Amino acid sequence: MKINRDRIQQNLAELATFGIDPQGGLTRSIGSESELEARKWLIDKAQALNAAVVTDAIANIWIVTTRSTTNLKPITIGSHHDTVPNGGKYDGALGVLLGLEVMQTIIENKVSLKHPLQVVSFTAEEPNPYNISTMGSRSVTGKLSQEVLNSATDCFTGALLTDSIRKAGGDISNLKEAQLKENDMAAFIECHIEQGSNLYKKNKSVAVVSKITGIYREQITVEGEANHAGTTLMEDRHDALLAAAEACLALEKTIVGVGRNDVAGTVGKFSIFPNAANIIPGKAEFILEIRTPDEQTKALAIAEITTALNGISKQRAVQFNREVILNQAPVNMSPVIREALANSIQNRDEELITLVSMAGHDAVHMTDITNTGMLFVQSIDGKSHCADEETRIEDIEVAGNVLLDTILELDKILE
Amino acid sequence: MKINRDRIQQNLAELATFGIDPQGGLTRSIGSESELEARKWLIDKAQALNAAVVTDAIANIWIVTTRSTTNLKPITIGSHHDTVPNGGKYDGALGVLLGLEVMQTIIENKVSLKHPLQVVSFTAEEPNPYNISTMGSRSVTGKLSQEVLNSATDCFTGALLTDSIRKAGGDISNLKEAQLKENDMAAFIECHIEQGSNLYKKNKSVAVVSKITGIYREQITVEGEANHAGTTLMEDRHDALLAAAEACLALEKTIVGVGRNDVAGTVGKFSIFPNAANIIPGKAEFILEIRTPDEQTKALAIAEITTALNGISKQRAVQFNREVILNQAPVNMSPVIREALANSIQNRDEELITLVSMAGHDAVHMTDITNTGMLFVQSIDGKSHCADEETRIEDIEVAGNVLLDTILELDKILE
Repeated sequence: MKINRDRIQQNLAELATFGIDPQGGLTRSIGSESELEARKWLIDKAQALNAAVVTDAIANIWIVTTRSTTNLKPITIGSHHDTVPNGGKYDGALGVLLGLEVMQTIIENKVSLKHPLQVVSFTAEEPNPYNISTMGSRSVTGKLSQEVLNSATDCFTGALLTDSIRKAGGDISNLKEAQLKENDMAAFIECHIEQGSNLYKKNKSVAVVSKITGIYREQITVEGEANHAGTTLMEDRHDALLAAAEACLALEKTIVGVGRNDVAGTVGKFSIFPNAANIIPGKAEFILEIRTPDEQTKALAIAEITTALNGISKQRAVQFNREVILNQAPVNMSPVIREALANSIQNRDEELITLVSMAGHDAVHMTDITNTGMLFVQSIDGKSHCADEETRIEDIEVAGNVLLDTILELDKILE
Repeated sequence: MKINRDRIQQNLAELATFGIDPQGGLTRSIGSESELEARKWLIDKAQALNAAVVTDAIANIWIVTTRSTTNLKPITIGSHHDTVPNGGKYDGALGVLLGLEVMQTIIENKVSLKHPLQVVSFTAEEPNPYNISTMGSRSVTGKLSQEVLNSATDCFTGALLTDSIRKAGGDISNLKEAQLKENDMAAFIECHIEQGSNLYKKNKSVAVVSKITGIYREQITVEGEANHAGTTLMEDRHDALLAAAEACLALEKTIVGVGRNDVAGTVGKFSIFPNAANIIPGKAEFILEIRTPDEQTKALAIAEITTALNGISKQRAVQFNREVILNQAPVNMSPVIREALANSIQNRDEELITLVSMAGHDAVHMTDITNTGMLFVQSIDGKSHCADEETRIEDIEVAGNVLLDTILELDKILE
């Protein structure tokens, strides 16, 4: 049994017609017209399979086939259909459409499963103007309260999230009904592009995900002394920008020094004050991020950075004020699903590659309630979140067949 | 003959009552209520001396005594009465009030001068929301066109500059009438706080200014590659922030390496894009500034920085796009005025210190039309543009007497 390569290619191309941005890539943010069009297209596709479609309180789209012979809990394949601004055609979309492709292949081949098979497309996985990412998966796993969702507004337009969700077919006042309890589901599998270059460099199609990285963030404020850029002698300066620059480079040195592909360190947000050409910066603010699935590595990196910051602080007579603003633990993927994915990969004559996911995904939250696994597909040159995001159809075909085989195996072994 | 120490102290204290900012320091920006009050106070003070007061087209305040015995052109003492936000009591104000004090001392002592004596308080010397600093001195020396002034608006409120100038007693449509030609003035002397720590460290009251620094600025854009902060391997990154951080530190290293007090290098304006915690910065923009009165030193520093940027560019595979946005040449102070100031300092039993001004001043522009000189007064700990800006009355008294003697000497020797 095989998935239909031409059909998945056609479906990816069709979904990629929603949200074409004149500035490049796809822009399909929660509540936008293009996002609503993508939903409608997806629901039409599902209904053409005679699947039941339910849009839940947070507007997650659940597509269910009831061709099951028992009352076991469903096995679910899913990801998301929204994109970042100027994003790509595969991030999220691939996981939803391959889920649908596997479902259609099983229907066409008249295979009877013990478990109901579900496909889910989660609402607002990506960073968005409501500042709530992985919104759909966090809502169904009880991690977002009705109060938070009710009060969320678009930071550009001031629009209420509740209105966007209503347009998308949801209703936040029914949030409780959408929440899943442990064992409401037999398994959850998310297929996603790698977004990194490990598979590209190895020239392989797919990988089993072992863990999803922890994410640690500090908000750091550097207190120096603003002063006149001309009259203040170099020796008298307490330049907050230069201290922060050294801190950023110290982070890079520390992380590169670890010498592992599953550790990343980034300063992505950075500002100085008062930010005028003729004034020595008196204050700098930045967010330092470390990602790794290994808690001990994280602790050692933080210790090394602390030593570096203390040195800079002493040398320049500036102060670093540090606040931990995120400390999300790494999560392990289910051994049962990892094994099923590994067997499927090897049975399709592919080399077994195991990777850590260095990005967060809806799968992180699904681990709270069910056996969860992830399958990575190669991104060409590791690109994602951009117009150049690309994945070869050959790799997509391998991923689809691995996913199909995995579902069939899990259906046999899971209760 | 001596100036009146108690009176100048009292006048400085009175002027410092206009613009007291609840957030600290004085805020007296062009067109603000406090700036208008300061003008009124100053005009009242001048009129009490029976001096003629003229507010010109750009609202510079000219205070003139006609107790002269010839038709020689006036000798002018001046500075400005506006402040930066949360600025200090001395920057600008000291030069205007010491001018008035010298004028009053000469009147009281019934000294007849050959030249008319003038005091000027220039409009909007400091950076302001209209983005036109040294507005008054540049207007009278023909460096600002009526078109530029007519179209200037407050970047916060959108208010027209023409309205602010009208409120202050000027009228930009008469700009031509305010413009001075070469030799319309016999001399211009600006007394100003040093704003640096040279005099403070030497524990001296005053210094003769030899030159005013040149100011060189480049707008630099770093083109790297925005990418996912988790999934992009450290070795695959082209992080624009880290490249810019190295560039800022290279500037510091170059300037410190020159090892002279009259060279300064600063990055005061700095931004990154897209500026999100989970995205590797793809672009950075900053303004690199070098100040020195020595053109050769500037050229060598730029060459060294160019070498450094080329190295960073190659190492990180990022691109630096550089544009020179300001290249203001240094200006020399008039030898005649320098000598008169030096003689006066030594006659008052003070050590002769000569300094370069590392800040721009109205005096820069006055060099275009007349013999121009500057006298620096110690700033405690070199502080300026802040609430802590302070100058001892003992040092102010020395400066006032030096200024008085200098005017008397220049009156004799200048035609």
